[in-house]
Amino acid sequence: MDLRKELELRRKLIEKSLKCFLPKAGEYPDYLHKSLYYSLFAGGKRIRPILTLAACETLGGERNQAIPFACAIELIHTYSLVHDDLPAMDNDSYRRGKLTNHKVFGEAIAILTGDALLTLAFKIMSDTNNLNRLDPLLVIKIINNIAFFSGIAGMIGGQAVDIKSEGKKIDEETLNYIHSHKTGALITASVRTGALVANASDKDLKLLTEYGQKIGLAFQIIDDILDIEGIEKKIGKKTGSDKKGKKATYPQCLGLDASKRKAWELDEEALSILENFGKKASLLSGITKFIVSRNK
Amino acid sequence: MDLRKELELRRKLIEKSLKCFLPKAGEYPDYLHKSLYYSLFAGGKRIRPILTLAACETLGGERNQAIPFACAIELIHTYSLVHDDLPAMDNDSYRRGKLTNHKVFGEAIAILTGDALLTLAFKIMSDTNNLNRLDPLLVIKIINNIAFFSGIAGMIGGQAVDIKSEGKKIDEETLNYIHSHKTGALITASVRTGALVANASDKDLKLLTEYGQKIGLAFQIIDDILDIEGIEKKIGKKTGSDKKGKKATYPQCLGLDASKRKAWELDEEALSILENFGKKASLLSGITKFIVSRNK
Repeated sequence: MDLRKELELRRKLIEKSLKCFLPKAGEYPDYLHKSLYYSLFAGGKRIRPILTLAACETLGGERNQAIPFACAIELIHTYSLVHDDLPAMDNDSYRRGKLTNHKVFGEAIAILTGDALLTLAFKIMSDTNNLNRLDPLLVIKIINNIAFFSGIAGMIGGQAVDIKSEGKKIDEETLNYIHSHKTGALITASVRTGALVANASDKDLKLLTEYGQKIGLAFQIIDDILDIEGIEKKIGKKTGSDKKGKKATYPQCLGLDASKRKAWELDEEALSILENFGKKASLLSGITKFIVSRNK
Repeated sequence: MDLRKELELRRKLIEKSLKCFLPKAGEYPDYLHKSLYYSLFAGGKRIRPILTLAACETLGGERNQAIPFACAIELIHTYSLVHDDLPAMDNDSYRRGKLTNHKVFGEAIAILTGDALLTLAFKIMSDTNNLNRLDPLLVIKIINNIAFFSGIAGMIGGQAVDIKSEGKKIDEETLNYIHSHKTGALITASVRTGALVANASDKDLKLLTEYGQKIGLAFQIIDDILDIEGIEKKIGKKTGSDKKGKKATYPQCLGLDASKRKAWELDEEALSILENFGKKASLLSGITKFIVSRNK
């Protein structure tokens, strides 16, 4: 399998679908639409929606049925970045090498853009034109799954603890909470969503949930490491910003070497879970290795 | 019919249900829960969710089936207030006589609280425990209806144009856009949601949508008038704040007398639509008169 080709195929599919689901350019009020486009097409790798498609395909589900939900997750991810970058939150001026949303459109429009992206995610998922023969009850369960993992008990909870922990010395338990929620929850939701679309058995859903949790945490640890070791242009934001902002990170808490070991361990554990699905999981395996190889 | 008693009965039902749907107090992270409770139980009259229940009852629907959606609309309304009050938006320090959320919990938690309330609204609506024998396909349509009216083409669009029009001289068309979207859209959605729960015919849904649009606009005009004439303690925020903030309002655009006439006309038109439903609409009629009587 040519991993790059497979990822690229799905990334393009997501980008094309996102464009279809978004309000048309020029619709009133146009600055709000421009702002949505700006942040949504800012060069993201679309890892979350690709995970949704890949999890669905691993269980023999129809990729097309997963697309509206995969796109919704990308909208939720993007809203969280727009709000996270705000001066009252992380106060970041650059992301992926481009000015952050509020630096271009102003704080008020950035807040509303985040709100609009989040609302649009649920509008897309509940559009009966996007049902693609899925059972409506299953659709409701998928919406609920995504709302759960992106809400207080998931992503938002993690962000709140992250903000409140700034400048404080925190223990490993709190650090695990922050990262498993702030980043891990939506990645877990991405994998679970694909599995749900494919009508996963309870056993498979449980396995893929554990897989999602492990790669979600690995993803964040790698991010923290890249923030210290990374080359500025490679991740597109000023490196060292977490340290500067007194954010709790794995390298800070455990040290750089122990953090790397932790990420590799999590990745190995994730790959061993995928062995349950044999060759069908080759795309998910590829993505799993890709997440850690960002570090190399 | 004793209107006050009927409104009070439903207000209490909504408050009780909201408490059931919210995460329990003390759940980690506790400051996020406290912040949600603070803004959600800050003395709102619950007009929107009561409209949902009343519209459902007008068409002979089951009130209990409408409750999760009515509560979701109140959560969406509350999130919009929390974000609206932020320094980057309207920069309000008081609402309903209490400090605004960011004044108590800080800007970052206020942003996350709004995000959490919005996400929770969709979680409640998609919780299969709250289905109450409703057809899942109908539930999806209701979720979509609410997402549409609270999104870019509805409430968020109105807020964006409102913000961008600050300090500018705007025409009546733009003013109508702002108010029919910023306030009117969610009020229209409240009424439509109740009608949808009751399995409204296309004709009834159309009539109640027009009714919702009219009272939504009347509601905002009365708000603008109260802002000029109102007594500070009555509406719980500093009067004259819209003028101070150079917000576009009806009294500013049309003058006070013409604004009052416009509100009364809209109210009369709304009441005449309700005549199609006979005595069953007596609660909705009462609410309609209540909206305008706030001015007296």
